[in-house]
Amino acid sequence: MFGVTILGNNSALPAYNRHPTAQVVTLSDHLFLIDCGEGTQMQMNLYKIKRSRINHIFISHLHGDHYFGLPGLITSYGLLGRNAELHLYAPAVLQDILNMQLNVSKTLLPYTLHFHALENKTSILVDEESFSVECFKVLHRIDCWGFVFREKKKPRKINIEAARKYHVPVEFFEELKMGKDFVRNDKTISNELLTTANKPAKSYAYAADTIYDESIANKVSNVNVLYHEATYLKDKLEKAKARFHSTSEQAAMLAKLAHVKKLLIGHFSSTYETLDEFLTEAKEIFPTTELALEGQTFMII
Amino acid sequence: MFGVTILGNNSALPAYNRHPTAQVVTLSDHLFLIDCGEGTQMQMNLYKIKRSRINHIFISHLHGDHYFGLPGLITSYGLLGRNAELHLYAPAVLQDILNMQLNVSKTLLPYTLHFHALENKTSILVDEESFSVECFKVLHRIDCWGFVFREKKKPRKINIEAARKYHVPVEFFEELKMGKDFVRNDKTISNELLTTANKPAKSYAYAADTIYDESIANKVSNVNVLYHEATYLKDKLEKAKARFHSTSEQAAMLAKLAHVKKLLIGHFSSTYETLDEFLTEAKEIFPTTELALEGQTFMII
Repeated sequence: MFGVTILGNNSALPAYNRHPTAQVVTLSDHLFLIDCGEGTQMQMNLYKIKRSRINHIFISHLHGDHYFGLPGLITSYGLLGRNAELHLYAPAVLQDILNMQLNVSKTLLPYTLHFHALENKTSILVDEESFSVECFKVLHRIDCWGFVFREKKKPRKINIEAARKYHVPVEFFEELKMGKDFVRNDKTISNELLTTANKPAKSYAYAADTIYDESIANKVSNVNVLYHEATYLKDKLEKAKARFHSTSEQAAMLAKLAHVKKLLIGHFSSTYETLDEFLTEAKEIFPTTELALEGQTFMII
Repeated sequence: MFGVTILGNNSALPAYNRHPTAQVVTLSDHLFLIDCGEGTQMQMNLYKIKRSRINHIFISHLHGDHYFGLPGLITSYGLLGRNAELHLYAPAVLQDILNMQLNVSKTLLPYTLHFHALENKTSILVDEESFSVECFKVLHRIDCWGFVFREKKKPRKINIEAARKYHVPVEFFEELKMGKDFVRNDKTISNELLTTANKPAKSYAYAADTIYDESIANKVSNVNVLYHEATYLKDKLEKAKARFHSTSEQAAMLAKLAHVKKLLIGHFSSTYETLDEFLTEAKEIFPTTELALEGQTFMII
C-alpha cells in the first residue's frame, strides 16, 4: 500500500474542529509522519494510527502549527517504552529546542532519536531498496522544505513460458528483470519477448507551506499525488502573497504545470467555516483535485 | 462567580479521550488558566471558554503534559490580534524556551507578554482588591508549584435602619464596613448592632503534581475546594512514590488533614480506562470528593 492519511488540514489557528498540519504516509509497510501540529498524538488515537510503526518524522518548517505536537509525541513514545530508533528530519535549530525541553523536564528517552538537519538544497533523506524520500526547498516566510516519496522503478516480471521457450537459464533471470535482452549464440532475444512491465513506480509530493512558485513544478513533476497548500481563496490573492501562502487556484495552477495526476489541497485558513469553494475554485483549473479532509486516506495511484 | 472548569484531567499520555492538565478558574469576572497541556486551545474551543478574557496563566512545572499547549496558545493569541497584556507565571527557564520558539518562527506578538519567574517560596503573585493568587512549592521530580486563589475578606454590610437609629454619619460607613465600632459622646455602639456579616471569602487550591507531602496541608488549610492529583490507585503506592506522584487515597488523606470542604481529584494515569475506583477509594477517607471530569465546572462554595 502507498497512501497518505490526513490528521490535520488547517492553518495556524485550530478552528471548526480542523487541526494544524500532520499527515501519515504509508509506504511499503513503513509509516512516515509529515509535520506534527499541536494535538497530532490525539489525532493518531482518533484515527487509529499505529504510531509505534513510525520510524521517520519530517518537519517542513518551524512555524508552530507544523511542530508544536512534536515534543508531546516524542515524550509519549518514551512513556510507551519505545526502543526502536526514531529518525527526525527537520530544520537544524529544532534540535536545540527539543534538547532544552527534554533537559528541563529531566526526560531521558529510552530510545535513540537521530536528528538530521535539513540542508538548503534538494537532498535524498531516506534511500531504501524499494523507495526513497527527498526534500526540496520551498519559498515561505522562514526556511521551509517539501518532501517527495518515490517508489523505485520496479523490476520487470518474467514470462516463464517465454523464458523456457527461448532456453533462458535461471541465472540470467535477475538481468531479465532489469530489462536486459538475452543473447545466445549471437542471437538476441528481446527483453520484451521475455518479460512484462511491472506496476509503474508511484510518487507523492508534499509541498509544505509556500507562496505560489513555479519552480516547484520541476521538483514535483509527474508525481501521482501532489499535496499543495491552499490557505486562501483567490479573492485573497494579495493576502496570500504577503503571507507567503497560496490560493486554491494557485495550487491548481501548480498541479497543472507539474503534470501531476491528482492534487490534494489543505492548510485552510481558519477564517473559512466551509471548504466547498476551495474545491470548486481548484477544479476549474485542475479537475482531479480533492480536499485533504481529516481522517481520510488517499491512495497514491 | 468563583469556579473552576476542567479542560484536561489526565497524566502525561493522552488516553481514553482524556487530555493533559489544564484548568480555568473564574473569579470576580477574571479568567485564569492553570497549566496548559497539549491541546488546551482545542479544549477551550470545545468547552466555549472565552480565551480572550484570560490575562493570567500559571504553569506549575515543566513536564510537557503541563505546558506543551502553551506555545500554541500564545501564538494563537497573536493570530487573533490580541492586544491586552498577558501575564505568565512559570518556572524561569520557560522564558528561554518560548523566546527560542518565537524567534525561530520570526513571530512578533502583537501584545505584551509579561513573564514572571516563580520563586522558590510561597509568594503572592496577584494581589487585587477583592482577591489574591499565591504560589507554594510542592515536592515533585522537578521544581513544581501549587497555586491558591483566595477571595479577600468581604466588607460587612451596613444595616441602614440601625445606622439611622444611632445617627451614624455617612462618612463613617466605610469604617463600619471594616468592622469598626461607632463612638459618639464617649458612647460606643458595637459594630454588630450596625452591620451584618457578608458572604465569607472563599478559596481554591491547586496542588499540582506532587508526592504525598503533609506539609502541603498547612498551605491549603481550610480552602473551600482543593484540587489534588491522584495519578494512581492505592495498590500502586510504591510506583506513586517512585514517580513523586500520589494515590487517590493519599489525596483524600491530605484533604482531611487540611480540613478543606471539598476535594477534586485528577491527573489520572492513562493505564486506567475508567475512573470509578478513584472516587470510591478517596470517598472512603474523604466523602466530599469529586472526580475532576473534563468539561465540568465546579463552583467554589
